[in-house]
Amino acid sequence: MMSMNLVDSRVQGCSIFKQPCLSDKPFIKPNFLRLRKPVSPFIVSAIITEEEARILKPKDEPTSFNFKAYVVEKANYVNKALDYSVPVNNPPIIHEAMRYSLLAGGKRVRPMLCIAACEAVGGHQSAATPAACAVEMIHTMSLIHDDLPCMDNDDLRRGKPTNHTVFGEDVAVLAGDALLTYAFEFMATATRGVAAERVLAAVGELAKAVGTEGLVAGQIVDLTCTGNNEDVGLDTLEFIHIHKTAALLEASVVLGAIMGGGSDEQVEKLRIFARKIGLLFQVVDDILDVTKSSEELGKTAGKDLATDKTTYPKLLGLEKATEFAEKLNEEAKQQLADFHPAKVAPLVALADYIARRQN
Amino acid sequence: MMSMNLVDSRVQGCSIFKQPCLSDKPFIKPNFLRLRKPVSPFIVSAIITEEEARILKPKDEPTSFNFKAYVVEKANYVNKALDYSVPVNNPPIIHEAMRYSLLAGGKRVRPMLCIAACEAVGGHQSAATPAACAVEMIHTMSLIHDDLPCMDNDDLRRGKPTNHTVFGEDVAVLAGDALLTYAFEFMATATRGVAAERVLAAVGELAKAVGTEGLVAGQIVDLTCTGNNEDVGLDTLEFIHIHKTAALLEASVVLGAIMGGGSDEQVEKLRIFARKIGLLFQVVDDILDVTKSSEELGKTAGKDLATDKTTYPKLLGLEKATEFAEKLNEEAKQQLADFHPAKVAPLVALADYIARRQN
Repeated sequence: MMSMNLVDSRVQGCSIFKQPCLSDKPFIKPNFLRLRKPVSPFIVSAIITEEEARILKPKDEPTSFNFKAYVVEKANYVNKALDYSVPVNNPPIIHEAMRYSLLAGGKRVRPMLCIAACEAVGGHQSAATPAACAVEMIHTMSLIHDDLPCMDNDDLRRGKPTNHTVFGEDVAVLAGDALLTYAFEFMATATRGVAAERVLAAVGELAKAVGTEGLVAGQIVDLTCTGNNEDVGLDTLEFIHIHKTAALLEASVVLGAIMGGGSDEQVEKLRIFARKIGLLFQVVDDILDVTKSSEELGKTAGKDLATDKTTYPKLLGLEKATEFAEKLNEEAKQQLADFHPAKVAPLVALADYIARRQN
Repeated sequence: MMSMNLVDSRVQGCSIFKQPCLSDKPFIKPNFLRLRKPVSPFIVSAIITEEEARILKPKDEPTSFNFKAYVVEKANYVNKALDYSVPVNNPPIIHEAMRYSLLAGGKRVRPMLCIAACEAVGGHQSAATPAACAVEMIHTMSLIHDDLPCMDNDDLRRGKPTNHTVFGEDVAVLAGDALLTYAFEFMATATRGVAAERVLAAVGELAKAVGTEGLVAGQIVDLTCTGNNEDVGLDTLEFIHIHKTAALLEASVVLGAIMGGGSDEQVEKLRIFARKIGLLFQVVDDILDVTKSSEELGKTAGKDLATDKTTYPKLLGLEKATEFAEKLNEEAKQQLADFHPAKVAPLVALADYIARRQN
């Protein structure tokens, strides 16, 4: 099944390709279809509101540090890198589907955490850029597959129709597979100036965050528990969130620290920081689901309630869930005590942002 | 949607897990559910028939080389490695689904090519074992996703019900995602005695064979062309086969050569060898589809004809398609001329096996 307006490009993708398949040269993907699409400005303007920027100024933030400027600069940088990482190539339909979801906006929290962690250990953002793109590719892939009719069956994502509603289920499954694969390829082949041992360790860390110790484990238990709430306690809820959300946020930070040349001790402190804000991220998501509208969230609101899903507000009440979020934020920031305050100011601000974001 | 007999283990997987999610220790996946299931003997006995063993004895094969013994030994070795690589762990359902398809038999041609290429350049099979498992995980993942109702909608695979008919579409999508991810994780973390630069290069090679320059590209064009045969010429057919089949067979050989310590020249010669037998593999598949029964193939036969799919027998006729297969086999073996005959005897025999296999 696919939307009619895409049939042409699919047939074209099938018929115009003339690869000398039996030549002895390595395959070269032709670039004649390579287009550069500008990144939509709405992506950046949507990242942080003036109100959020005001709320978010951390107490211990050096006066020189401007969080809104930082977020806008990094988001622009990440969006350009993502736009470059997946060009429109042949076959066009799969690249269009990948780009549709990858460049559909989103706050780019994971790539920003990756770059901020790289800079926190004294690295240059360029060392962590392929890793930052990789974590966003993985995040996007998980959204595409989770939205499928056989999974959460969602029609709206980041304020746009979900991938399968536009491209069809078949293309959506393959777009997810391609983004998942390309995340590893891009990090393994595009990273520069980092020892192979570190890049290889990063590949292992990222994979662990995606598979049966990460996203996949979280999603499978989530699918199992929806509608089986008599079995769902806080331990199971935390298992779901740690695997479905925190694992990739942890990987984002750890990958940045590894690529930036961090010591084992630095990497482990940042890992714990990330784990705390990872759970924080989901607790806030649960709170927003019951306190915000679909328009404000850019995705279907009240879905957890509608599907009778166990959430923190449901288990603890809204007030206690909010207190729990603040506690996690404080515990996370304690892990940054031994780092230079100026170098971790972005991580501190990002933790506050995750705690207090409005969508 | 899922079959009833699996609900219990899913709920169990969801409720019994007690992870101290807010501790500062790294996540450790508990092993209390780790089970060792013996590899079913049918897997090995199904790999090669006496008749095939007789046909397959290559002319230039050293008298000391026994192909049937080699295939049985390597298949047993690979099956043990695969069984070890994905234990039954928590959550049980996803590991059961992964193991159901990964250990469902299959000829293990890709892992054997990987190990044979490693040994052809003088390496020990242990260096290529994680890579050999990785290529089979990728192959299995592609079968699970290609069989989905939204793709080829197949019910029978390797003589057993397809993954989604047993575990449900949701679990099948996630089992594919998990196997795809774990292939990279296992190769990156379990490879021993190989320089990080080589393992990292192997990660890039494998990813390239899976994504939009490999399996995904082949499948998307295949989906596009089924039912659009006026657009399907030999060039498109070869594009599909090179990407859907040859790319992963090429990666299997190239990964083995890289892990085995092969020189750039050796790797490139083996790459061309692999590309030829990769296309050969698909041509023979097309021939078998029209000449064998579902029982003989262990999958739905005559499906290409039923879906009006363009195939080599359809384009060239059965006789010319068979000649083309023989030509590819000879061209492939020419690439091995500079290697020690005894060291490449398994690769020569495997090429003959791919050319003359009966299922």
